[in-house]
Amino acid sequence: MEKRELLYEGKAKRIYATDNNEVVWVEFKDSATAFNGEKKSEIEGKGALNNQITSLLFAKLKEENIPSHFIEKISEREQLVKKVEIIPLEVVIRNTAAGSFSKRLGVEEGTSLKKPLVEFYYKDDSLGDPLLTEDHIEELEIASREEIAILKEKGLEVNRVLSVFFEELGIKLIDFKLEFGKTSDGAILLADEISPDNCRFWDAKTNEKMDKDVFRRDLGNLTDAYKKILAKLEGIQHV
Amino acid sequence: MEKRELLYEGKAKRIYATDNNEVVWVEFKDSATAFNGEKKSEIEGKGALNNQITSLLFAKLKEENIPSHFIEKISEREQLVKKVEIIPLEVVIRNTAAGSFSKRLGVEEGTSLKKPLVEFYYKDDSLGDPLLTEDHIEELEIASREEIAILKEKGLEVNRVLSVFFEELGIKLIDFKLEFGKTSDGAILLADEISPDNCRFWDAKTNEKMDKDVFRRDLGNLTDAYKKILAKLEGIQHV
Ligand SMILES: Nc1ncnc2c1ncn2[C@@H]1O[C@H](COP(=O)(O)OP(=O)(O)OP(=O)(O)O)[C@@H](O)[C@H]1O
Ligand SMILES: Nc1ncnc2c1ncn2[C@@H]1O[C@H](COP(=O)(O)OP(=O)(O)OP(=O)(O)O)[C@@H](O)[C@H]1O
Ligand SMILES: [Mg+2]
Ligand SMILES: [Mg+2]
Repeated sequence: MEKRELLYEGKAKRIYATDNNEVVWVEFKDSATAFNGEKKSEIEGKGALNNQITSLLFAKLKEENIPSHFIEKISEREQLVKKVEIIPLEVVIRNTAAGSFSKRLGVEEGTSLKKPLVEFYYKDDSLGDPLLTEDHIEELEIASREEIAILKEKGLEVNRVLSVFFEELGIKLIDFKLEFGKTSDGAILLADEISPDNCRFWDAKTNEKMDKDVFRRDLGNLTDAYKKILAKLEGIQHV
Repeated sequence: MEKRELLYEGKAKRIYATDNNEVVWVEFKDSATAFNGEKKSEIEGKGALNNQITSLLFAKLKEENIPSHFIEKISEREQLVKKVEIIPLEVVIRNTAAGSFSKRLGVEEGTSLKKPLVEFYYKDDSLGDPLLTEDHIEELEIASREEIAILKEKGLEVNRVLSVFFEELGIKLIDFKLEFGKTSDGAILLADEISPDNCRFWDAKTNEKMDKDVFRRDLGNLTDAYKKILAKLEGIQHV
């Protein structure tokens, strides 16, 4: 596979074309951002950690018959993935109240939700990624009713698999954000990344945070937290 | 009917008990507030205008077989209504993009929506009345799935009747907010008020605003705008 021109540089990754029109080359950056880019930092090693964690998790999902854009990890901070046209929605799945959910709705952080809850946010930095209802998504023609149902179902499926997986590692999966895209044949495919940048992971015993909240809330060393997650993930790989 | 103790004083109305436990006495105040109470003013005559307009509109809805809490107007600024337990949701129905919808979602004011859209906001001043999805409403146990469906259907029904009614008066019904409550037998009943405080009315020809945006955006004399609405409503009453 040959790396070609930079297609897009985001806050966390660079996306390059390849000689295969169906494949893009992803490079994970060391940048950490929060609050819609207001808080920023370079954190050495974060890109490599997220690349490893994302690769492990997409491989795990594949084992459980959940396909994704992931093809293979090709270096410390790079991976090849199927090119998709990203649907501009952040699909957030929540098991426990935390973060903006707690703040917006007045529900104490750590409160278990009665059942996993799916939210959609409009991926639009200039609008500050507003929460959308299904009627908004339809009105704005971001996705059809049928596609919304698919996104919800897929999100909940990923949640079922990952919740159990992390539980076995002594980690509570509090919430996470997924992105989906459309392949050239119109199918909806799980894409982007699944890393501590986009998930909340709490130690099941101590509730210690091992995710981007360490950065958002200045709770300590970010890569130490991400390394803990990776170590647990790799632990189970070797069992 | 006898007026008893003050049960609740809101930003726009005072609610008094009566000697009938199923009936409350509503007094419309002259206060105008906007932006969650940040902007405030006393505007002489507003209470009386809203009482008249609300009374006319609830009477109109009754003619069209849409029941509400409204019993009768008993003075310039007072009316009797059936007592309900208010469901803490602002049910917003939108026909045309405006206000917070336009701002949040980047849709130009005045854009016609493909179909009427219903939104729910959590009636909670301390949280700033956040937008809720149906899953939020269920999780927070504000209403059940079935009740949400009823609220939506009733909101759209009111919209159908009022849109046609106002169109005949040369007024575009852009959007409006309803509140519903439960009667002692558990039925869901349309309540609160339907006035230019909670609706957006635009002149069909000139797009002149005849609603609380006149106050929110300092566009002129508020009671003049409300008087125009009332005059048009009374016009049709006399045809
Ligand atoms: N398989 C894929 N094909 C094409 N683009 C993808 C794929 N997976 C993820 N992307 C996109 O790559 C871009 C870069 O990722 P990154 O996380 O850096 O973006 P971001 O800064 O979070 O946000 P934004 O998406 O708003 O630019 C994102 O827009 C993401 O949606
Ligand atoms: N039929 C009814 N029975 C009981 N309460 C009602 C009825 N209709 C309306 N209300 C309530 O009367 C209260 C006073 O109205 P008002 O519009 O002044 O309140 P508000 O300041 O807008 O907001 P809030 O509802 O947050 O106090 C509101 O809480 C409203 O929901
Ligand atoms: Mg991203
Ligand atoms: Mg009110």
